[in-house]
Amino acid sequence: MNPRLKDMEYAVRGEVPIRAEEIAAEMEACAASGQDHPFNFSSLLRCNIGNPQSVGQPPITYYRQVLSLVDSPSLLQKSSSWMFRRGTQIPSDVIERARSFSSSGSTGAYSHSQGLASVRRDVCDFIEARDGGPECDISNIFLLNGASAGITSVFTALLANPKDAVMVPVPQYPIYSALITLLGGKMIPYYLDEENDWGLSVEELQRAIGEARKKGQRPRALVMINPGNPTGQVLSEETLRMVARFCAKEKLLFLADEVYQENVYLPGSRFVSARKIAHELEQTSAGAERVELVSFHSTSKGLIGECGRRGGYMEFWNIDPQVHAQLYKLQSSQLCPNLDGQVMTGLMVRPPKPGEPSYRLFEEESSRIFGSLQRKAAALTARLNEVDGVTCNAAAGAMYAFPRIELPRKAIEDAEAKGLAPDLMYCLSLLEATGIVTVPGTGFGQRPGQWHFRITFLPEEKELARALDAFRDHHEAFVARYAD
Amino acid sequence: MNPRLKDMEYAVRGEVPIRAEEIAAEMEACAASGQDHPFNFSSLLRCNIGNPQSVGQPPITYYRQVLSLVDSPSLLQKSSSWMFRRGTQIPSDVIERARSFSSSGSTGAYSHSQGLASVRRDVCDFIEARDGGPECDISNIFLLNGASAGITSVFTALLANPKDAVMVPVPQYPIYSALITLLGGKMIPYYLDEENDWGLSVEELQRAIGEARKKGQRPRALVMINPGNPTGQVLSEETLRMVARFCAKEKLLFLADEVYQENVYLPGSRFVSARKIAHELEQTSAGAERVELVSFHSTSKGLIGECGRRGGYMEFWNIDPQVHAQLYKLQSSQLCPNLDGQVMTGLMVRPPKPGEPSYRLFEEESSRIFGSLQRKAAALTARLNEVDGVTCNAAAGAMYAFPRIELPRKAIEDAEAKGLAPDLMYCLSLLEATGIVTVPGTGFGQRPGQWHFRITFLPEEKELARALDAFRDHHEAFVARYAD
Repeated sequence: MNPRLKDMEYAVRGEVPIRAEEIAAEMEACAASGQDHPFNFSSLLRCNIGNPQSVGQPPITYYRQVLSLVDSPSLLQKSSSWMFRRGTQIPSDVIERARSFSSSGSTGAYSHSQGLASVRRDVCDFIEARDGGPECDISNIFLLNGASAGITSVFTALLANPKDAVMVPVPQYPIYSALITLLGGKMIPYYLDEENDWGLSVEELQRAIGEARKKGQRPRALVMINPGNPTGQVLSEETLRMVARFCAKEKLLFLADEVYQENVYLPGSRFVSARKIAHELEQTSAGAERVELVSFHSTSKGLIGECGRRGGYMEFWNIDPQVHAQLYKLQSSQLCPNLDGQVMTGLMVRPPKPGEPSYRLFEEESSRIFGSLQRKAAALTARLNEVDGVTCNAAAGAMYAFPRIELPRKAIEDAEAKGLAPDLMYCLSLLEATGIVTVPGTGFGQRPGQWHFRITFLPEEKELARALDAFRDHHEAFVARYAD
Repeated sequence: MNPRLKDMEYAVRGEVPIRAEEIAAEMEACAASGQDHPFNFSSLLRCNIGNPQSVGQPPITYYRQVLSLVDSPSLLQKSSSWMFRRGTQIPSDVIERARSFSSSGSTGAYSHSQGLASVRRDVCDFIEARDGGPECDISNIFLLNGASAGITSVFTALLANPKDAVMVPVPQYPIYSALITLLGGKMIPYYLDEENDWGLSVEELQRAIGEARKKGQRPRALVMINPGNPTGQVLSEETLRMVARFCAKEKLLFLADEVYQENVYLPGSRFVSARKIAHELEQTSAGAERVELVSFHSTSKGLIGECGRRGGYMEFWNIDPQVHAQLYKLQSSQLCPNLDGQVMTGLMVRPPKPGEPSYRLFEEESSRIFGSLQRKAAALTARLNEVDGVTCNAAAGAMYAFPRIELPRKAIEDAEAKGLAPDLMYCLSLLEATGIVTVPGTGFGQRPGQWHFRITFLPEEKELARALDAFRDHHEAFVARYAD
C-alpha cells in the first residue's frame, strides 16, 4: 500500500461529508420502515461542494438540447424535418450545432488524445476574444475530464523528487496539497491576507520561497486560484502582474486555476486572465520576462454548472515542446477525455450569439442563474457577519464564502481531547444540529490558531435564508455550551 | 520533469500512429490545395486501436436513445405525450429507463465518487447473473472513466517502492508496463505460450516470480487479460483456477482485465470470470485459498463499442477495507466519473429484455455486430496465415490478431543501423506503402528475437479484405527488398 496515498488528504469529500452520507442513509432507512428519524432537520443541505445542479440549479436548455441530439443520430436525422415543423423547442441553431459535432465523428469513438480538433479551435477563438489576442494554437489545448484531471497530469510530469516543491496559496483548493502529498513532493504555502480581502503580496511570496530554499527544496511551480477557492477573491491586474513577474524571475511554472472565471459578482471586480498578463509582460519586457504558464478552465463552474459532464481544458503557453510531448503521451495512455465533456466544453466556449434562435432563452436562463448567485453571495456574507464571533470577507467571485470563526477556549480544549481539529468538531456539530454540510478550514489550510469553514452559496435563496437562521442558532448554542 | 514519465512507453498511440496522423494531415492539405497527394492509397485504415465507431461500426440505437433523453429534461418531459404518439422510434421502455436515471438526479451534477448507486446496483445484478452468484455489494463497485482510469488508481495505491513488482503477461496491453514505469515499480514479465494458443502454465509463473525474488523484487500483484489483448486467446477454467491458486499461494493481488468478456467468437470458447473461479476456490478450500481480486469491465469494447463515453467499472473482491477507503479517497479527489459514462455502464449491464419494446431492434443490431466481428476474426487470421513468413493463432476473442512475422536478416540489420526496432521499421514500411496503421510487437512485448504486430479486425468486411491484399503485396515486396 502506497504510504503517500494514506497521507493524502481531500477534505471536500472528507469526514464531514462522509458523516453526512451516514445521516442520509439513516434518514432513508427510517423513512422506509415508517419510523421517525432522530434528527432535528428534515433534510441535508449540501454546502460542502460546488455542485450547483445537485441543489436545484436547472441545466441551461441550449447545452442539453445540443448534447441530446449529438448523442442520438436517429433523432438528429429526423430533427430538422418533423421536430422543428411541430414547433417544439428544438431551434434550428441547435440542430446545426449538433450536426457540426456529428460531422467530426461519433461521440462513441475515441478522439485525438488532446480532444476533437474542432472543439479545440473553438476554445482558441474563445481565449483570443476574451484576452483580446494573442493567437492561440490548437496544439496547445488539451481537453480534459474536468480541470482536476489536467492538474493531475501536470503535477505528475512536474514532481519526481522529494525536493521538488510547488508554491500553493493558503487557503487553497485541496487537490493541490493532495497531489503533492501523493506524488511525494513538497508544498510551499504562501498565505493569502484575510485582512486585505484575501490578497497577496510579493513580500509573502519571497518569504515563502526563501524559506523553502533554505530547507533545500527546489521550487518548480506556483499555483494561483483566481477567482479564489475557498476564498472568493478576484485578483487585480496589478497583483497578477506581480505574480507573473515573480514566476518569470524565479523560473517557476505558473499554474493558473481559472475555473471560476465567469463567477465574478462584485461591482468593480473583473476577471483578467493570467495569459493576458503573461503576454503583456513578455511584450513590455521585450521577451526578458517570459512566463511558462498552464491555465485551466472547466464546464463544472461558471453559470453552466455541468459538473457531472467532467469537461474542461488546459492551455499551454511557452511550454517546452519536450514537456508537451510527454504530457501528450501521458494523456494518450488514458486514450482521450470523455466526448460528452468535450462537446460541453465546445458549447461553453461558443454559446449562442445574439440573433440566433436559441439566444434569447439562453440569455434569460444564464442571467437568472447569475442574478441569483450574485444575490446569494451578498446575502450569505452579510448574514454571516451579523453573527457574533463570525467574520467574512465579501465573496467577490467563485461559489463560496470562507468565514472565520472565533471558538471558545473550552471548545478548543474539548476538540483536542477528542483528537479532532477544532473547526472539524465545529462543522460536525453544525451538521448534527442543522443538516448543513460544510468543510472545515483545516481542509484548505489557514494560519495556525485560526479557524474557518467553507460554505457554498448554491442552494435556492429561500433555503439558504433558512439555513442561515439555523446556522446562527447553532453558533450561539455552540458558544454557550463552551462558555467559561 | 519527471524522468519516469520520459521513460514511459505507450505504443498504441506511439510512433506509427503519430506518423499516420502526419500522413493524414498531408493528404488533407493536398486536397485543400487541389493537389494530388504522394501516397499510394486513398485513405488510412486505422487498425492500431480498438475503436469500432471510428471505422464504421454504428452505435446501437437503444443506448443512444436513452442517453439522449437522459441529457435533455425538456425532451424527456414531452417524449411520452407527443413523440411516442407520432410513431417515432422512441419506444416506451426507453422513456421509462431515461426517467429512472433522471430520478437519481441530473447528469449535470457530481455523483457519489464511486458512481450512482442505482447503476452500481445494476452492475451487481449483472455480475451475479453472469457468475451464477455469489452476492455482489454495491460498495465494492467503482464506476470509472474507462477501465484505464481504474487500473491507474489501483496501481497508484499498489506501487510505492522501486522493489514493488507486478507480474504482467507478455505480450500485454501497454497500459500496464506504462504505469509500472511511471510509478517507479518493476514489471515481472511472464510469457504467454504462442505455440499453445497464447496459453500459460504454472511453471512459467513460478519461473517468473522466482527470478524476480532473486533480484530482490517484492511481487505485489498479477495482471491477467482475458480475453487476451493483443493476443485474442480465451482462457480455460483450468487455467483460471491455476492462476487464482497461484495468486492465493503467493499472496498476490489478482488483477483481472476482462474488458473483452463479450468478445468471444470461437465455437467452444467461453468467457469465465476470475471472480467466479476465485469464489469457487475459496469454497472448495474452505477459505484456505483466498484470492484478493479486482476485476475491470468497460463500455468501450464488447458489442457496445462506446469508447468515447469513457465508461466502465471495477469490482473489489476480498479487498481490505483500509485499502478500499484509500481508493475511495483517491477517486473522490477527482470528484466522480463522468455521468454519461455512468449511464452507458448502466445500459451495458442491463440491456433490453425479451418482450420489451426495444428488444427486437437491440437484438438485431447486436447480432449483426457480433456476426461481423466473428467473420472478420476468422477471415483475418486465415488470410494472414496464407502469407509466407506470417503465422497467426486464431483470434478466439477480443478485437485483435497478433501475427508473428519472419523478417529477413538484412531487414533486421537495416533496422538496427537505423536505430529502429525491426518490427517498428516493418510497421512504418507497411503504413507508407498501404495506409494500414498497426502497432509493432515491441509495444506489447514478445520473446527476444521474435517479431509481431497487432492489427484490429474492426474495419468493414470489404475494406478489411482489400487491406489484406495490400498487406500481402507489401509483405512480399518487403521480403524481396531485403532478400540475401
